[in-house]
Amino acid sequence: MNFVVFSGGVGGAKFAEGMARSVGADALTVIVNTADDLELYGLRISPDLDTVMYTLADVANAETGWGLTGDTFRNFEMLGQYGIEPWFRLGDKDLATHIIRTNMLRSGATLTEVSRALCARLGIRSRVLPMSDEPVRTVVETDEGLLTFQEYFVKKHCEPVVRGLIYEGIDEAHASADVLRAIETADTIIIAPSNPYLSIAPILSLPGVRDALLNAAAPIIAISPIIGGQALKGPAAKIMTELGKVPSAVTVAEKYSDFINGFVLDQKDTELQLDVITMGLGPLVTDTIMITPDDRARLACEVVNYADQLRPDKMGGCKLDDVPKLSPTT
Amino acid sequence: MNFVVFSGGVGGAKFAEGMARSVGADALTVIVNTADDLELYGLRISPDLDTVMYTLADVANAETGWGLTGDTFRNFEMLGQYGIEPWFRLGDKDLATHIIRTNMLRSGATLTEVSRALCARLGIRSRVLPMSDEPVRTVVETDEGLLTFQEYFVKKHCEPVVRGLIYEGIDEAHASADVLRAIETADTIIIAPSNPYLSIAPILSLPGVRDALLNAAAPIIAISPIIGGQALKGPAAKIMTELGKVPSAVTVAEKYSDFINGFVLDQKDTELQLDVITMGLGPLVTDTIMITPDDRARLACEVVNYADQLRPDKMGGCKLDDVPKLSPTT
Repeated sequence: MNFVVFSGGVGGAKFAEGMARSVGADALTVIVNTADDLELYGLRISPDLDTVMYTLADVANAETGWGLTGDTFRNFEMLGQYGIEPWFRLGDKDLATHIIRTNMLRSGATLTEVSRALCARLGIRSRVLPMSDEPVRTVVETDEGLLTFQEYFVKKHCEPVVRGLIYEGIDEAHASADVLRAIETADTIIIAPSNPYLSIAPILSLPGVRDALLNAAAPIIAISPIIGGQALKGPAAKIMTELGKVPSAVTVAEKYSDFINGFVLDQKDTELQLDVITMGLGPLVTDTIMITPDDRARLACEVVNYADQLRPDKMGGCKLDDVPKLSPTT
Repeated sequence: MNFVVFSGGVGGAKFAEGMARSVGADALTVIVNTADDLELYGLRISPDLDTVMYTLADVANAETGWGLTGDTFRNFEMLGQYGIEPWFRLGDKDLATHIIRTNMLRSGATLTEVSRALCARLGIRSRVLPMSDEPVRTVVETDEGLLTFQEYFVKKHCEPVVRGLIYEGIDEAHASADVLRAIETADTIIIAPSNPYLSIAPILSLPGVRDALLNAAAPIIAISPIIGGQALKGPAAKIMTELGKVPSAVTVAEKYSDFINGFVLDQKDTELQLDVITMGLGPLVTDTIMITPDDRARLACEVVNYADQLRPDKMGGCKLDDVPKLSPTT
């Protein structure tokens, strides 16, 4: 069985981790947004790849939503002494990831190869695939002018009003061969509850990805990151409003409607069920909020079983009792 | 007044720090060996430059002889988790120096410019000049084959028998314009008690440096790093023996004899005085061992006064009572 999850950062990473336990790590491929990537002090940083990788390895910092648990910031303090403007914090241990990535890329490795090597060292058995080996960078058009994604997200705390989003380099970039093959050979494809505009849209906008999804044999299911008109984390609802959309799970379903076969609504949005059914999607309505590792596994298991109902040949679903437990992150 | 000190790592750095307090930081230029430099994980490391810089900024780790005092090694531990062979330790704070240096060099700055920027941020008023902006790398010919300097020094703990030394790139490299100007305009030039073969020889071997010294108006004084046939620190005496030389201060004096006007012998080597006088050098015999910051200042002050006697026009020497104290490094 091949399960493919499209993911951004925290929400997608949590869901992917639940999937890894529910279907077995070996059966999982995570396709990760890289349009948030940045170069900082000459180091190549891939925030979403790292969040997915650290979460799968159970070393992610759950409190901050980025970096490694229990990391320290001595290097960052010293950079400050050297006069580096302290807007993007990198932990001392986290920095090892960026140093190795940068060094491997400079030596000619692809980002896909780098991710494979890093994951192997962290004991991750799932495949974590960057969406592309070529640079795509989200630029946010705001009332304060053009901002790189991290300037908007980290430096400006998502405060500027968003007028539009540009995925710089997207037309020259390609989905990696591994990504296209994963979609093609998938038995189930799931769009994690990640930001549709900042995390999923760059992946979908890569030449070849939307066609691959339209041609995919697997059922494709999207999980709404919008619950009761709000995003659990991040600026998704705010951006939707600023772009003139209704911040609602229905808007998310519409955005994916040309290629999805199923949609997962949070139980708080039960009243939206009919709208989704009208779009030809019989939604799964459930608790989609992932606070504990158990929540992740339960949601993943339910989505796997839901997907199984969407295909003619049942593949044998997920039994929650059989899913290994993960100790709650401290 | 312009004082110029030629320096390698620890011993030279300590002497330079004593000089900075004795003659005033603004009056000091330190010309530093860069033939020990290395690239590690894509980062450019300049051990001697850093030791001099950290010592002048009073943040050097006195216990280890490298890195910053009170540094931590979280990054290094994480690199280990990624499978990096742990032979060259870089502290978390120390890493900031290498990250900034690497980034500035990649952006087209010279090593001289990088050093100026780093020193400015650390509040260092002396000029710390890399001997060259071009790469020179010491390769050690040993009974175990060719080793890079850091392989020999750090990985192999100086254990292999040295058969010869190659300063790779030396013929294509140039002393920087700042270095040549510093020598030309110096009032006093001092060769610090650094390793003559590993630290001072690369500087002297750079095209132009020996001529500049021969043409210099300033008295040139060398301080012996060999005391009682031993080096206080490092493999100088061992290397001298392995290269077929007598490990003695006299051998050091001979190595520099074509351009020095004065020589500083440790009091333990009083019996070598006559040999040095025979070479036409009336040596200063004193306690050259620098344990405390006060030792550094005393030695520096004595050498400054000794230099003053070697020129026709006295320049006003150093009064030890006027030298500011540095609290003993903890």
